[in-house]
Amino acid sequence: MKVSNPKGTQDFLPAAAIPRRYVVDTLVRIFERFGFEPLETPAFENLETLHGKYGEEGERLLFKILKRGEGGKAGEADLALRYDLTVPLARVVAQYPDLPRPFKRYQIAPVWRAEKPQRGRYREFWQCDVDVAGSTSGMVEIELLAMANEVYSSLGFEQFVIEINHRQLLTGLILAAGIPAEQEVSTLISLDKLDKIGRDGVVAELQGKGLSSDQLQALDTLLFDQLDAFMRARGLDEALMGHLASHLGDQPGGRKALDDLRALLTGLEHAGVPRDRVRLTPTLARGLGYYTGPIFEVTLANFASSVGGGGRYDNLVGMFSGRQVPACGISFGLDRILLMLQEENRLPVLATRTQVLVPFYSEAERDATLQLAADLRAAGLRVDVYPEPGRLGTQLQYGSARGIPFAAIQGPDELARGVVMVRNLANRAQLELTRKDVVAHLKAVQPEEPSRS
Amino acid sequence: MKVSNPKGTQDFLPAAAIPRRYVVDTLVRIFERFGFEPLETPAFENLETLHGKYGEEGERLLFKILKRGEGGKAGEADLALRYDLTVPLARVVAQYPDLPRPFKRYQIAPVWRAEKPQRGRYREFWQCDVDVAGSTSGMVEIELLAMANEVYSSLGFEQFVIEINHRQLLTGLILAAGIPAEQEVSTLISLDKLDKIGRDGVVAELQGKGLSSDQLQALDTLLFDQLDAFMRARGLDEALMGHLASHLGDQPGGRKALDDLRALLTGLEHAGVPRDRVRLTPTLARGLGYYTGPIFEVTLANFASSVGGGGRYDNLVGMFSGRQVPACGISFGLDRILLMLQEENRLPVLATRTQVLVPFYSEAERDATLQLAADLRAAGLRVDVYPEPGRLGTQLQYGSARGIPFAAIQGPDELARGVVMVRNLANRAQLELTRKDVVAHLKAVQPEEPSRS
Repeated sequence: MKVSNPKGTQDFLPAAAIPRRYVVDTLVRIFERFGFEPLETPAFENLETLHGKYGEEGERLLFKILKRGEGGKAGEADLALRYDLTVPLARVVAQYPDLPRPFKRYQIAPVWRAEKPQRGRYREFWQCDVDVAGSTSGMVEIELLAMANEVYSSLGFEQFVIEINHRQLLTGLILAAGIPAEQEVSTLISLDKLDKIGRDGVVAELQGKGLSSDQLQALDTLLFDQLDAFMRARGLDEALMGHLASHLGDQPGGRKALDDLRALLTGLEHAGVPRDRVRLTPTLARGLGYYTGPIFEVTLANFASSVGGGGRYDNLVGMFSGRQVPACGISFGLDRILLMLQEENRLPVLATRTQVLVPFYSEAERDATLQLAADLRAAGLRVDVYPEPGRLGTQLQYGSARGIPFAAIQGPDELARGVVMVRNLANRAQLELTRKDVVAHLKAVQPEEPSRS
Repeated sequence: MKVSNPKGTQDFLPAAAIPRRYVVDTLVRIFERFGFEPLETPAFENLETLHGKYGEEGERLLFKILKRGEGGKAGEADLALRYDLTVPLARVVAQYPDLPRPFKRYQIAPVWRAEKPQRGRYREFWQCDVDVAGSTSGMVEIELLAMANEVYSSLGFEQFVIEINHRQLLTGLILAAGIPAEQEVSTLISLDKLDKIGRDGVVAELQGKGLSSDQLQALDTLLFDQLDAFMRARGLDEALMGHLASHLGDQPGGRKALDDLRALLTGLEHAGVPRDRVRLTPTLARGLGYYTGPIFEVTLANFASSVGGGGRYDNLVGMFSGRQVPACGISFGLDRILLMLQEENRLPVLATRTQVLVPFYSEAERDATLQLAADLRAAGLRVDVYPEPGRLGTQLQYGSARGIPFAAIQGPDELARGVVMVRNLANRAQLELTRKDVVAHLKAVQPEEPSRS
């Protein structure tokens, strides 16, 4: 029998689970500082809840659950594992009309997609979503992005950029390039691949989709040639917006989009976000079809993919209730954030949460061992008692291997003299203390905890 | 279209999710104080991993996941949602031979069982499991139960009892009643229902299973009649053990079990567990077949079901690797704990995590509103900005409805005078403070947080 976790999934052994918890705790702390509340929904949804929300491609990636019991025909499914946290939120907003308006929630939970497993792409992965449902105010976008700034700063990232754009600005620019409305979505889908296939790739793909050379020329000039200069220079968003406005002419949608973006940029300054952290990126498209207003993505220098992103989607909840509920949200990529923190050596956590190992000499010291551990724990220390009596060397080796910083040793000799030997398991330095002093000493020598306040 | 969560599942809206988090945080804090480390495993396992571990009944309750893509025949399943956290642990211990020995882990995660949904019984529910793999030492049981004592005490329960028994003591008593070894398991299964069907029910069921009246008489006398007196009186475990020893005669398994229990009782005293919190209960059976040594259950006065339980299972890991790895663990019932805390009004948490509402008067105050919120947040306060400009009354009502304790109001008049009006949303008391003083004031008036240290 093959003993393994399923293909495309991960086991997080303690050394991996501990930094994940540190990042999740940081996210929760900041989400709550911005007034968001936790929401938990089931891992699976009724199939009809997910049906028709993710396009043909997404639909094929659902993990479907077999009907149970006599009632179900062979092979029929009535449930599926959630594919994201946005559709469950829309379902919740539609199902509970008495929720506060606006409803501000976060949810940190796994989602499942039956994609071909690849390096860095898993079938089970965690999303960290923060959304506001029930308000069209631009204040929502300002708050979400001020929060994103706080998240990445708190995690220790120095070089990140919050890129913003607006779906209706893109629509305006596509129209201005003479591309008909019915080709807008397919143009956006190609544009969204700019990161991966580059400018030439996008142009070639659009040619394949039947755009005329006039249309391509206009789009290319508008979005790439003239923007290049703006994109390379920072802090020129005002000039860039003037440039875009001149191309948009009197299209009301596009001009409104520019006004929204201008208000967003100003608001972020007043919310304390440094000006050079935010960049207007008119080529930012984001794949999902449901966005209707501002869209955003957080990118790190030296990292190809985004580490977070979101936008406004005012029509999704309406698919459930008939009642339109505007919404806007941002999602933080836990796995990518962890990957980058690891690569940049910014994970301020030890391999273990345990602070003190209490070895267990022999049955004769059992009761004294238990009492010592109880005293250390009563002082708030995290203490592991080695369960098997026996060789001290083996026990200390176990402690070192786990990365536990100290051992509090109380063998027959120490016990007789009323002392405890405190050993630094990293450098093997030892210090004999009276039984009375050992608790305060071990509390004092612990490294400072990464902030959880 | 019916908009609802799947049958047998729950949505935890913020008012329910917040107390759940408080309990989980408390559990984590204490698990780590006892040297346990977090482990995370996937929500689903390969079907073959779960197969044959839960008996026929359990097998029927698995949520199976359809094969995906072209390869799978219609209706075939290759994965199933995890049914508990014990089998995934056994799989992990078998799969990663380089884990520290002993391996001490906790896992707090949902499990899924396709049971008929009933009041208080869900198809998705959370388990909080703590286990030690790789040691046969009785120190393991002592530490686990000392931890259980700390868990329930920290949550504020006053009247709980840790009931202990031993699988081999039960075996010994069943043999002593003249019941043949091949009827031991079926006798245990009936005995396990004592809580639910009572003494007469158990006897009737055993009669139905073909036990002779001599055997029934012996068991009845041994386990019920003579024990009744001991069970009603506390602190008589020593006398009870003498009584059991006399019935066991010279059976080595039963006598070893009594020795284990005696060492456990003594050890718990030295670990600081009050003597009257622990009770030897020779009728405690626990349903699962895989236990091999001490077993335990935590019960509350005024609550029929247990709120936690576990035991030693030395053979489960061997089912995966061929290599025997002894193990022992305890599981805490999150939903039942929450239910009891609610009923006893012991949940020391507010309906919201948000501490201050900052209303948004009108577009003219947008920037000042953002700045005030940024200052409050920089001081560590959890602050919600109302996103829509408009009537103050509506905004304060929203804050009250969410249970936010204070509002920091900065309308055009306050802004002009450089002050902020702090309003207590519960009693409507107001206090005008200078912009400079408001942060320190709002920090000072917050109720103390439930301990998370």
